[in-house]
Amino acid sequence: MNDFKPIGSVHSPFKVPVGAPIQPAFAEGAEGTVEVLSQYAEGLRDLEGFERLWLVYWLHKAPPGALSVIPFRDTTARGVFATRAPCRPNAIGISCVRLLAVSGTILTVGDLDILDGTPLLDIKPYVPEFDSFPNAKAGWLDACGVDRTHADERFDPEKTR
Amino acid sequence: MNDFKPIGSVHSPFKVPVGAPIQPAFAEGAEGTVEVLSQYAEGLRDLEGFERLWLVYWLHKAPPGALSVIPFRDTTARGVFATRAPCRPNAIGISCVRLLAVSGTILTVGDLDILDGTPLLDIKPYVPEFDSFPNAKAGWLDACGVDRTHADERFDPEKTR
Repeated sequence: MNDFKPIGSVHSPFKVPVGAPIQPAFAEGAEGTVEVLSQYAEGLRDLEGFERLWLVYWLHKAPPGALSVIPFRDTTARGVFATRAPCRPNAIGISCVRLLAVSGTILTVGDLDILDGTPLLDIKPYVPEFDSFPNAKAGWLDACGVDRTHADERFDPEKTR
Repeated sequence: MNDFKPIGSVHSPFKVPVGAPIQPAFAEGAEGTVEVLSQYAEGLRDLEGFERLWLVYWLHKAPPGALSVIPFRDTTARGVFATRAPCRPNAIGISCVRLLAVSGTILTVGDLDILDGTPLLDIKPYVPEFDSFPNAKAGWLDACGVDRTHADERFDPEKTR
């Protein structure tokens, strides 16, 4: 396996898992910054003009990986790969944030659902032609009756699960 | 940094980079399978009903990371983080494939743009409410004049770049 290493980190108003938005879609108004290490500055050219970015990151505050979880928007245990829960065998998260400004190696981003101090692995532009499938069926999530938008304690490693 | 390890691998008609679709959006009709290691079988429960999945994987055939690249759909060098090119500082790819069938630990998938033998890191359900932003502006890609849909030799590690 390749040796992945942080290219930067995320600065966010969310210092602990509890209370953080569970997805960018529920993080309207939440802003923060992405600080990219200076040696990667050249790679940030041409980001301006993209409205949204995928941030790929290490879910460094996630509990150990589990295969069955009760996700935030359900009351039933589901296979973890059918959820976006953080406690995955490989703790890799993806978030489609809003790009507000680029200043050197600092990106100001909105719709931010990522915890403060999160190690960043990659940045990719969001491209609707590649990434947007508005009518895709979404299994149990289409039928779920829980409209939770912010995290409770269930995936907080400092609490008993 | 967490120790990421494959949870399975991708079986695909695309054995080499040249000629492979550059995105799932250009891979209509391309089918393959995702073989998940048996110890993760429990995590696949409830995948049925999702029309599309995010596959997160190691771009194991990518050339070493570069910070400026001429992407497939342009003739100008761009910052790599403003492209979906495979030669990234952390060679992590994401592809939104179509889920066709689940049989035990084998997922049959369509719209597949991933190379044969690719090590799989994660599977996440595609959820339009979380992932679909059809009107997001896409920077240089909105203005690009190149409509290439399949890879040429530029990111083939066996060719001179």
